[in-house]
Amino acid sequence: MTTLADIQAAALRIRDFVHRTPVLTSATLDREFGASLFAKCENLQKCGAFKARGACNAVFALDAATAQRGVITHSSGNHGAALAYAARARGVPCTVVMPDTAPEVKIAAVKSYGASVHFCKASERDAVCARLQQETGAEMVHPFENAHVIAGQGTAALELLEAVPDLDALITPVGGGGLCAGTAVVMRSLRPQAMMLGAEPEAVDDAARSMATGVRQPRVDGAKSWADGLMTGLGEPNFRLLKQHAVRVLTCSESAMLDAAKFFLQRMKIVVEPSAATVLACLRAIAPELRGKRVGMILSGGNTDFRWMQ
Amino acid sequence: MTTLADIQAAALRIRDFVHRTPVLTSATLDREFGASLFAKCENLQKCGAFKARGACNAVFALDAATAQRGVITHSSGNHGAALAYAARARGVPCTVVMPDTAPEVKIAAVKSYGASVHFCKASERDAVCARLQQETGAEMVHPFENAHVIAGQGTAALELLEAVPDLDALITPVGGGGLCAGTAVVMRSLRPQAMMLGAEPEAVDDAARSMATGVRQPRVDGAKSWADGLMTGLGEPNFRLLKQHAVRVLTCSESAMLDAAKFFLQRMKIVVEPSAATVLACLRAIAPELRGKRVGMILSGGNTDFRWMQ
Repeated sequence: MTTLADIQAAALRIRDFVHRTPVLTSATLDREFGASLFAKCENLQKCGAFKARGACNAVFALDAATAQRGVITHSSGNHGAALAYAARARGVPCTVVMPDTAPEVKIAAVKSYGASVHFCKASERDAVCARLQQETGAEMVHPFENAHVIAGQGTAALELLEAVPDLDALITPVGGGGLCAGTAVVMRSLRPQAMMLGAEPEAVDDAARSMATGVRQPRVDGAKSWADGLMTGLGEPNFRLLKQHAVRVLTCSESAMLDAAKFFLQRMKIVVEPSAATVLACLRAIAPELRGKRVGMILSGGNTDFRWMQ
Repeated sequence: MTTLADIQAAALRIRDFVHRTPVLTSATLDREFGASLFAKCENLQKCGAFKARGACNAVFALDAATAQRGVITHSSGNHGAALAYAARARGVPCTVVMPDTAPEVKIAAVKSYGASVHFCKASERDAVCARLQQETGAEMVHPFENAHVIAGQGTAALELLEAVPDLDALITPVGGGGLCAGTAVVMRSLRPQAMMLGAEPEAVDDAARSMATGVRQPRVDGAKSWADGLMTGLGEPNFRLLKQHAVRVLTCSESAMLDAAKFFLQRMKIVVEPSAATVLACLRAIAPELRGKRVGMILSGGNTDFRWMQ
């Protein structure tokens, strides 16, 4: 299981390859909540998402011989771009298997970092990955079930706590759960009394149902949501970490999520993708509980084609 | 004339009322230019623009008796919101005279800070201001010809140089010229060998023509530009400061400006208003001169209704 020491080691390992992202505040938000909110801007991270942290940690943790054979992954976008970025930083080959429904902007990002891209149906992705892995000898770096990836994602919370040590609550989106699990490890070690929250859209609420039932629920098949980054099911090690650290997973409607994304754009002047906006939408749903508290939000990414704005 | 000491005093005076905005970098931009670019994000400033700096400095520099009578200004938007914000912070009344063509989002911002708003035609604004000033006894805080405002705007450059001391060049937009003049004072004092640049759209190139002819040129009447923040003519004290400090004013086309605004939105994940995007558009026009250099950009604001995106 991922520990605080793993995450601290990751922070040192990736330091030269990721941004120390800013923490923004908004007087308007603080007035709305009667609380102090702190936004850790991973949308301003390398590749536009926190995924750069986990990918860099996984790639730079490989021994030299393994790294030379390259890395491979499947991803709807942000992890693919991040792995391509990390592989280029280390100078090793990278292959990304993407669903043929991935947004244009995310495909372009993966290609811009020099990775080779293979498209397939979501249902075939494991088979395609396995075949390519066999052909190339590349190391599989799973987007959210890889221990180094989970540890890397936790480094955002580590930085946020260095900037704002006295948080009473912290929320991250939950898709595969790597960010939320890594963050939970940090919070339970350094702020054990704080509320640790996860956010997901109602349309893909498998994490909320998993926590409610105590049994990992499958991803919602055929679900429709603007949160393209959160369509995946909760990973097995992440579910265990979320349970161990008593993470409370909240859900929000599509319209609440888009309202939140628009708030970031219009009032805070930053671009967040709908997946990232879930954190504000979910906080709004429990606003009375947060009065007078210091609340962190990890804004997971900013890669979007803005179609949701219309 | 504004001095470095005035700007340093302003920095102390406004410290508790403005954000120390982040400085962002982009590997994509650095690759494009073969240079290191640093974006000082005044779009993430209080009220969404650098104007909060000058307005706070002007309002908090007033003696108590004068401040009690309130402040008044005319503004197409950002300065009006900033003055309203500063007045509320000090607990004194504020009146803002706005052109009836001001963007919706800027009018809403002024009102949200509790100022009273008066609309008039651009041509009548001085008369309306004078009348209201007489009625209320309020202190006029000119958007860019007030010495405290100019000194306040210079504090952004002071912070940027604290973060990146070895800049070879720095560029700001030029409208009324308060930001550019204050910045020029800082640069000529602390980095006298660096290039000091101004940016404006071709459609409102009065500052460029003023510098070229050595005589202050009137604002371009009836000009059409998406740079609503830069439609005003260069102020008299600012023109003198720009000449004294040998500022080089560059111009850019509307399409280059909008391309730059889209780059910030899509690649750097931040919202800049078209006026602010002029800095990148103008740097692109002299990119060969910048190779290997360390170049600062002051992104002046992020208040926009996004109509230029279509």
